[in-house]
Amino acid sequence: MSVLIQNVLIPVDNGYETVDVQVTGDRISAISSHLEGSETVIHGQDKLLLPGFVNGHTHSSQAWQRGLIPQLPLELWLADVLDSASKDLQVYYLGSLLTAVNTLLSGGTCLMDHAYLLAGQELESIGAAVRAYKEVGIRAFIAPLIFDEPFVAGFPSGRSLPHQPYSQSPAEILDLMEAIIDQFHEPEAGINIAVGPTGIQRCSDELFEGCAALSDRYNLCRHIHLLETRAQKLLAQEKYGVTAVEHLRQLGFLDHRTSLAHSIWLTDEDIDILAQTQSTVVHNPASNLRLGSGIAPVLKYLRAGVNVSFGCDGAASNDGQDLLEAIKLGTMLHNVTDPDYQHWITPQEAITMATQGGARGVNLTEHTGSLTVGKKADLVLYDLTNLSLLPRTDPLGLLVLGRPTQVVHSVWVNGQLVVADGKVLRTDTGQLQQELLSRSRDRKSPQFQMIQQVEPHYRRVMGLAGSDPTSVKG
Amino acid sequence: MSVLIQNVLIPVDNGYETVDVQVTGDRISAISSHLEGSETVIHGQDKLLLPGFVNGHTHSSQAWQRGLIPQLPLELWLADVLDSASKDLQVYYLGSLLTAVNTLLSGGTCLMDHAYLLAGQELESIGAAVRAYKEVGIRAFIAPLIFDEPFVAGFPSGRSLPHQPYSQSPAEILDLMEAIIDQFHEPEAGINIAVGPTGIQRCSDELFEGCAALSDRYNLCRHIHLLETRAQKLLAQEKYGVTAVEHLRQLGFLDHRTSLAHSIWLTDEDIDILAQTQSTVVHNPASNLRLGSGIAPVLKYLRAGVNVSFGCDGAASNDGQDLLEAIKLGTMLHNVTDPDYQHWITPQEAITMATQGGARGVNLTEHTGSLTVGKKADLVLYDLTNLSLLPRTDPLGLLVLGRPTQVVHSVWVNGQLVVADGKVLRTDTGQLQQELLSRSRDRKSPQFQMIQQVEPHYRRVMGLAGSDPTSVKG
Repeated sequence: MSVLIQNVLIPVDNGYETVDVQVTGDRISAISSHLEGSETVIHGQDKLLLPGFVNGHTHSSQAWQRGLIPQLPLELWLADVLDSASKDLQVYYLGSLLTAVNTLLSGGTCLMDHAYLLAGQELESIGAAVRAYKEVGIRAFIAPLIFDEPFVAGFPSGRSLPHQPYSQSPAEILDLMEAIIDQFHEPEAGINIAVGPTGIQRCSDELFEGCAALSDRYNLCRHIHLLETRAQKLLAQEKYGVTAVEHLRQLGFLDHRTSLAHSIWLTDEDIDILAQTQSTVVHNPASNLRLGSGIAPVLKYLRAGVNVSFGCDGAASNDGQDLLEAIKLGTMLHNVTDPDYQHWITPQEAITMATQGGARGVNLTEHTGSLTVGKKADLVLYDLTNLSLLPRTDPLGLLVLGRPTQVVHSVWVNGQLVVADGKVLRTDTGQLQQELLSRSRDRKSPQFQMIQQVEPHYRRVMGLAGSDPTSVKG
Repeated sequence: MSVLIQNVLIPVDNGYETVDVQVTGDRISAISSHLEGSETVIHGQDKLLLPGFVNGHTHSSQAWQRGLIPQLPLELWLADVLDSASKDLQVYYLGSLLTAVNTLLSGGTCLMDHAYLLAGQELESIGAAVRAYKEVGIRAFIAPLIFDEPFVAGFPSGRSLPHQPYSQSPAEILDLMEAIIDQFHEPEAGINIAVGPTGIQRCSDELFEGCAALSDRYNLCRHIHLLETRAQKLLAQEKYGVTAVEHLRQLGFLDHRTSLAHSIWLTDEDIDILAQTQSTVVHNPASNLRLGSGIAPVLKYLRAGVNVSFGCDGAASNDGQDLLEAIKLGTMLHNVTDPDYQHWITPQEAITMATQGGARGVNLTEHTGSLTVGKKADLVLYDLTNLSLLPRTDPLGLLVLGRPTQVVHSVWVNGQLVVADGKVLRTDTGQLQQELLSRSRDRKSPQFQMIQQVEPHYRRVMGLAGSDPTSVKG
């Protein structure tokens, strides 16, 4: 079975070229100025072909919380997220399905789902996500989000708050991980399990080390949240006496398979460690702004040779789930951090970060991320006649800096056509819409209560006015 | 002629209410829990009704430069904009048409076009914009962009560069303005001329004073760029010995009809002056990031009681032209500027800024900007069953913080239906698309040459490395 995309625009080093691209089986089999003899021919005129983007960090089940949680810093926002999470497996499945659909329709062919585990239904939660991703036909990395310390441990001096020890031991959690790997890790089917300890804020050294050992044994990607907030930076000093990055390096957690969501509050020495260990930073600009986490020093990362990819983060902190929006924001946001425009990220560089950088972040450099003969056909075809990409100037300039809307024409994952003419082929999005709508009508408004138990502590340790009754706000 | 929108969701102080809204002629004639007896009935179930947003600042003819200009700071970017501008009136008209279409389909019913004048075809340029806005049926403010100082005057110490004096005197320019007002100012038809001296970087005191006098004589809005860049702040000190805001106050240019695009590099004293004079800041977050101009101190403005509205800015610096994107970015961007989340802009506040704030910025407070009986019916109906607004949580939360795509169902301007079922009614967008596409194919790549004449000077005065041959970049 082969497909020929004829006369399609592709970016090259100094601009664009019009070529024919042939896909045979799961791979790109030829790229040339003129090809013939494929079973299916697709007319590429007025279309742009790119490798698929990787959404390097999301939490698919948060799809149900988009638009719901007030704008709050991570630590308080998390309390509201926990208070409003569903425990229904069908809801979980629909969230993963919606996330996959949003990813495909914004140019992504692969995602890293830092996936919540429903208590008591851990295997079933991952099973629901796997079912959604197989159904839609997206390449997926699923990092079950695990931790072995209580919620309050995530706050500086948080252990002074009333709390119970966490209910599961590292050994029990690692056993669960092994069961998940055993049941679901199936790279050849496009489903990859990764190890996903949430981050230094709620994980013991034992858990990090156990995850690193699993990663070595099964050659799994490693994925965590890293230094998303100033509070986490304070916490790392309190917990380790060194920076979080230095501590993770000492534990042997950082290597070329490790991707680090956010990575905002790093020192210059930390940045050097990321470069040395070949770790990847996943930049989630929309989430970082919504939660007021800060602006990740992405221009510094690029200068230091650290690999950077883009992520949406979960819908509770990025209520859209649009990769093109994440790429746009993650490109131009940094212009205000450095007055020298010669350091700014160009649209071409942004696309390379989202494709090659994304592939490297999930340890797929040899298999995806570029238009190269022999690589897997994870491809996206954009319609350049869409009103949002007109007038035609520089297609990548418009794709990255514009506001492309419904511009994805076709998507192939692993050589399989999963989107055609702007429609997701393997799931009924009309039915998804109806089910989301009818379930929306049945929902009750959430009661946000947990936040009250931690907010005074948060304001105090973060030095915010009004946290102390004796300090009156001017 | 009356229209009844039945069972539609509207935001109220503590949430939402479902009401019937009646429009008779050009006005909202009733809002109540149950109304009857209109000629046309629109079912509002699963829909949200809001006042139209105001796009407080754009340059419609830049539609042809979207995606085209490299990311550069304003002063250098302007050189490229001037080098790549078309002089074709039909191109100008199509740019205004596209801008109006983008505005309506992203929730706007009114725009402020800081409109370029084609040399030698000044009246005709404004005529082309007026034709587009009347055709589409959007409420428009057109501020012809005027100046009486040469391009190099916009750089700190710029007059040391080789240059010719500007070709027109203030008196000639003001005569032209009067001709434009005479020919096109027609508020009752939805077309309003405003005075639009570009800003302190290229305008003499005589031009500002002449514009203020015209504004007084004809009761016109006043619209300028203000302190968009650090370079402009330096320039103001060089030119006036006081801040730009203090100087404009002394000239009598600031009043309740004055809107100030960007307003990034202001002192706290400047902010007090804006509050005292009841001036409006138009916040253009996407453009400010793309050009690396900085982050406007919007939270400070709001605390000081300064009116703030949102703008897209022209497509050469915001290659999308989507008001909902501008509102999202202008809401959450500021979270990283203030660690106290109690100061952050809520989605509800953002909508108020985009509607009431927008109306106040164009001196229409009494006529538009809120769902109030007796006000003009400038209304937008959103489809809450759109996949990008599901699952249904908080409609305003999703509209502002999500990534709404094609969610505008209907739009009324001045009581006239101009968008229905997501389609612009009064212009053929299919034909617009075809014309943009065919003209794109004929275009030559621009030659950016002017930048070479000013870049070394810019790097030197802004203290950027490598500007001096003796300073080698580390």
